Amino acid sequence: MNQEYIVITFPDGNQKEYPKGVTLEEIAQSISLSVKKTSAIGKVNGLLYDLKRSICEDAAIELCSLQSEAGLEVMRHTAAHVLAQAVKRLYKDVHLGIGPVIDNGFYYDFNMKDTVTEQDLAAIEKEMNRIISEQPDMIREEISREKAKEMFAHDPLKLELLEEIPHEETVSIYRQGEFTDLCRGPHLPSAGFIKAFSLTHVSGAYWRGDSNRKVLQRIYGTAFASKKELKQHFQLIKEAEKRNHRKLGAELDLFMFSEEAPGMPFYLPNGQFIRNTLESFLRNLQDSYHYQEVRTPMMMNQRLWERSGHWDHYKENMYFSDVDHQRFALKPMNCPGHMLMFKDKLRSYRDLPIRIAEFGQVHRHEFSGALNGLLRVRSFCQDDAHIFVTPNQIEAEIASALQIIDEVYSTFDFSYDVELSTRPDHHMGSEELWDQAEGALENVLKKLGYDYHVNQGDGAFYGPKIDIHIKDALNRSHQCATVQLDFQMPEKFDLTYIDEENQKVRPVVIHRAVFGSLDRFLGIIIEHFGGAFPLWLAPVQVKIIPVSHAVHQEYAEEVQLHLKKRNIRAELDVRDEKLGYKIREAQMKKIPYLAVVGDRERGHQSVHVRQYGKESSFEVQLADFISQIKDETDRKTLLQEK
Amino acid sequence: MNQEYIVITFPDGNQKEYPKGVTLEEIAQSISLSVKKTSAIGKVNGLLYDLKRSICEDAAIELCSLQSEAGLEVMRHTAAHVLAQAVKRLYKDVHLGIGPVIDNGFYYDFNMKDTVTEQDLAAIEKEMNRIISEQPDMIREEISREKAKEMFAHDPLKLELLEEIPHEETVSIYRQGEFTDLCRGPHLPSAGFIKAFSLTHVSGAYWRGDSNRKVLQRIYGTAFASKKELKQHFQLIKEAEKRNHRKLGAELDLFMFSEEAPGMPFYLPNGQFIRNTLESFLRNLQDSYHYQEVRTPMMMNQRLWERSGHWDHYKENMYFSDVDHQRFALKPMNCPGHMLMFKDKLRSYRDLPIRIAEFGQVHRHEFSGALNGLLRVRSFCQDDAHIFVTPNQIEAEIASALQIIDEVYSTFDFSYDVELSTRPDHHMGSEELWDQAEGALENVLKKLGYDYHVNQGDGAFYGPKIDIHIKDALNRSHQCATVQLDFQMPEKFDLTYIDEENQKVRPVVIHRAVFGSLDRFLGIIIEHFGGAFPLWLAPVQVKIIPVSHAVHQEYAEEVQLHLKKRNIRAELDVRDEKLGYKIREAQMKKIPYLAVVGDRERGHQSVHVRQYGKESSFEVQLADFISQIKDETDRKTLLQEK
Repeated sequence: MNQEYIVITFPDGNQKEYPKGVTLEEIAQSISLSVKKTSAIGKVNGLLYDLKRSICEDAAIELCSLQSEAGLEVMRHTAAHVLAQAVKRLYKDVHLGIGPVIDNGFYYDFNMKDTVTEQDLAAIEKEMNRIISEQPDMIREEISREKAKEMFAHDPLKLELLEEIPHEETVSIYRQGEFTDLCRGPHLPSAGFIKAFSLTHVSGAYWRGDSNRKVLQRIYGTAFASKKELKQHFQLIKEAEKRNHRKLGAELDLFMFSEEAPGMPFYLPNGQFIRNTLESFLRNLQDSYHYQEVRTPMMMNQRLWERSGHWDHYKENMYFSDVDHQRFALKPMNCPGHMLMFKDKLRSYRDLPIRIAEFGQVHRHEFSGALNGLLRVRSFCQDDAHIFVTPNQIEAEIASALQIIDEVYSTFDFSYDVELSTRPDHHMGSEELWDQAEGALENVLKKLGYDYHVNQGDGAFYGPKIDIHIKDALNRSHQCATVQLDFQMPEKFDLTYIDEENQKVRPVVIHRAVFGSLDRFLGIIIEHFGGAFPLWLAPVQVKIIPVSHAVHQEYAEEVQLHLKKRNIRAELDVRDEKLGYKIREAQMKKIPYLAVVGDRERGHQSVHVRQYGKESSFEVQLADFISQIKDETDRKTLLQEK
Repeated sequence: MNQEYIVITFPDGNQKEYPKGVTLEEIAQSISLSVKKTSAIGKVNGLLYDLKRSICEDAAIELCSLQSEAGLEVMRHTAAHVLAQAVKRLYKDVHLGIGPVIDNGFYYDFNMKDTVTEQDLAAIEKEMNRIISEQPDMIREEISREKAKEMFAHDPLKLELLEEIPHEETVSIYRQGEFTDLCRGPHLPSAGFIKAFSLTHVSGAYWRGDSNRKVLQRIYGTAFASKKELKQHFQLIKEAEKRNHRKLGAELDLFMFSEEAPGMPFYLPNGQFIRNTLESFLRNLQDSYHYQEVRTPMMMNQRLWERSGHWDHYKENMYFSDVDHQRFALKPMNCPGHMLMFKDKLRSYRDLPIRIAEFGQVHRHEFSGALNGLLRVRSFCQDDAHIFVTPNQIEAEIASALQIIDEVYSTFDFSYDVELSTRPDHHMGSEELWDQAEGALENVLKKLGYDYHVNQGDGAFYGPKIDIHIKDALNRSHQCATVQLDFQMPEKFDLTYIDEENQKVRPVVIHRAVFGSLDRFLGIIIEHFGGAFPLWLAPVQVKIIPVSHAVHQEYAEEVQLHLKKRNIRAELDVRDEKLGYKIREAQMKKIPYLAVVGDRERGHQSVHVRQYGKESSFEVQLADFISQIKDETDRKTLLQEK
């Protein structure tokens, strides 16, 4: 009969009939054995689905391998169950909390009498491997709430979770071997699919993150589609640790923190040099794009923040002070100050666009536990700009903002992804204005040849936006730059300009940041370059070391003088230490060039140069060395090895 | 008999006997008639003395003319009495308050029914001139308190003043003509000595400055030794008004203020450009003197300010905020942050001197009534440096700090006075350290050839200091730079370094500022240059104006391109306006160079140049114009006319 068949649509659009109740596994097998073997999970009408679960209606399906994002996520979830099973086999009186997937891995929370330490992880891993080799199927069952209550009667945390499952939702459990867990799923067909995992560390964690509840024992693990990828992951972690900006910040004298001001960095001379260099790099660039730099107060009356809407939406993150018995807020953003500046004068369409930029120090509260070196701070310098435009100017101004962003990011060899977020359901401003604005943004992105991603409906209610995510040398993603249209600020501050017909009309505001936070960007590039900054950013560019500080100091000083005259940042090491020691120390400090000078170099008016990260060293005429450095600095050349 | 004579010592050391009871006027006459005529007041043993008052003991005396500081002060005091006399003649029911001398003039406070407005001042001046022409002697009388009470029975404010005269003090009155005032004196011999005065304005003023007391009417006047000097004074006021930095700040788009942040400047693009240029000028200079720039947080925990002593001595001027339920203070100074930086590492004598500098934004509360444009603000950027030295390094470091100060001030054509303040009675640190420190400061000042003034005992208890007072183009004095030794901060923060003998010892700290406040310094130079900034500071250096915007725009753009390529800040005015209008507008904006281009200039590859403040204009080859500008900029040449 016809009603016993359903139509399955494949990702390529092909369709095929299958008996009603068919599973993804059966569909995979109908294609080929190898498809069956490599399928770890599937999607039915876009939702993740166990391979063994029956499909009872026409559906679009997709089969996912372990290598896919979905496959990896499900494997990590199954690994969490295997972890729980292993712990229950090895310890007594184990009560289960939750076992979710996290970035690159998973954890499981346990309420148990015994304490698990990192020394115990090897034994647990061994038990997990035993379970995996048993290849237990992961069996889904849908059961009644009553049955579930009975089943988890001795697991009070599970009972609590059970209570919270919405009434319209089916309760499901997953079994593998002797182990059963209350779980929505989905899972791998069998625990035997887990290819490569490792337990990484343990910690305490409040049940449900609530500090009034019990502390559970949390065991963390990571899992990948292959042993090779797992190994790569650990290598990446090791590399990331080596590049950790807090570690390098101390080693290279870049910055420090003090308990007197948590989350507020102290920049040491080397760090401050780089900050200043980043700032003037962007200042010069902005100058060439006709931005005008301004500076607005650090704190302003609370009523201004009420007007701007920050009071309503952001006050929890703001710091306040009293001035003349009135409440002032330390600025968390620069916008309101820039609005006051625009408003201070009568503006004509002939004045637009007006592009004002500020390196503005802002303060935003973060929980002390969330602070993370320069990456998450409570005070930072935002490279903020506000561009006041007529609707017709949106496209050109967005294009020029994106060009600045591209110039900055390519200088650091960052690749980046572009996301366009469009009007949400509730939005302010006319449909016509949104059409024009979104159209302008899309046009620009197309004209500039960006392969952008659209987040439908993800824009702010006050305007569409473009977000830029950079990829660093370890392939980690960071959102830094943003370009946002704002139809609301001009309303709130009643901004107007006089148009061609002598009418008062509202400008549109473009918010724009390139670095985002100068402090965070510095943190990112410290890790991106692993502390080995390109020449134009390096606080010390050349370390000059005489072979003998007694014999060659004079020539070393002469070399330094020549370099300094050409504004090359050269330091001299004339301490009474061994040559090898001095060279190693300079390399520890990741100084781009070492210039060793002895008899031979003095005779030739040359230096013996060793570039950071390179094995070989070579003699070069001083004049040529200087030209090379000037050229590298002017072109902001990157180091070959990072 | 011998006892009828006393010995008078003159300023040149000469001595002469006079009869006991001799007056300064008699002594003056004994020298010459012209000395008598030019003497307005005198000093006896350093105290001001009426010329007609008897001297009964041996004394050192000095005769002072109206031109002297003492003479001017006394004349202004006498003028206040003449003002009171005139008001009493012209109005009924006048009760007198006080009539003291102030900067450049005097005032008198009256409690009276009639209201005096500025329209009435001419009539009062006329009456004062009549009194002066009557040449009444100013007669001092010492009377009993009872007599005084009787005499001022109808003047309740005077009775109040009488009550407050200490019991050991003699009560004195001064009479001229029908007028009598309770007064310590001294005064001119006669009101006829008053050479040039003017009443300037009226205002209300609380009796004794107490807002719970009655408001009196205050009439202000000014007086000088000659009509010429009075005229010069008014010219200076007019010039100062023309140069008023708040007025120029608005006209030249330098900065603005908002009621949302009283006392906290908003820098508009032109003002921010100059601020940045000042900052990088000093940064480069400091760099060549081996300073290291740092940056410390804007706010820190209150306990840090308790430790530094700011809490005890400065908390009334500090702003506070809450961070993590703890009290934080917005930094009013940068010192504590720099101390934490020094303390963060183990320091050796080989590391010293350590010179750390910060362009630090500080917040200090000022009464709203005391705010004055950029000259008195609540938030400013301090060019702060702290130099950590061994006692032996004090001299060299002070010398280098003074050299930086001199380089900066000469660049602006500021002359300056140097004051050295030495140990007060109560001071911390050993006498040996003070001897060494004061000796070092004096040595440096002598070696550098400064004609300095010593303020004996005027140093801070924690160390001696050098203050620098600059003189601006209107000869007004401003204290900006300071160099202070500090023996206390290193104690409070328990700072140490390891000396040659491997012992932990305390460094000495030198606090140093050159601009002092970058904001205030900007205010001062706006007035000093009257807004006509030297080329290197001018936000726009050249305004290019085509004779016909239709015909010559292309060549004008070519000129701009050539200038911009050489980093010359050139703007083009291609609006459809008359040439004369554009030239006038550019001159209103005080742009250093106007370059007009027409047929002739296009043919010659030249520009027709008019320099700001000069009458003549001339044609010059574009290449030569560029060289001239680059040369002026590099040498930071000042305008000839200011």
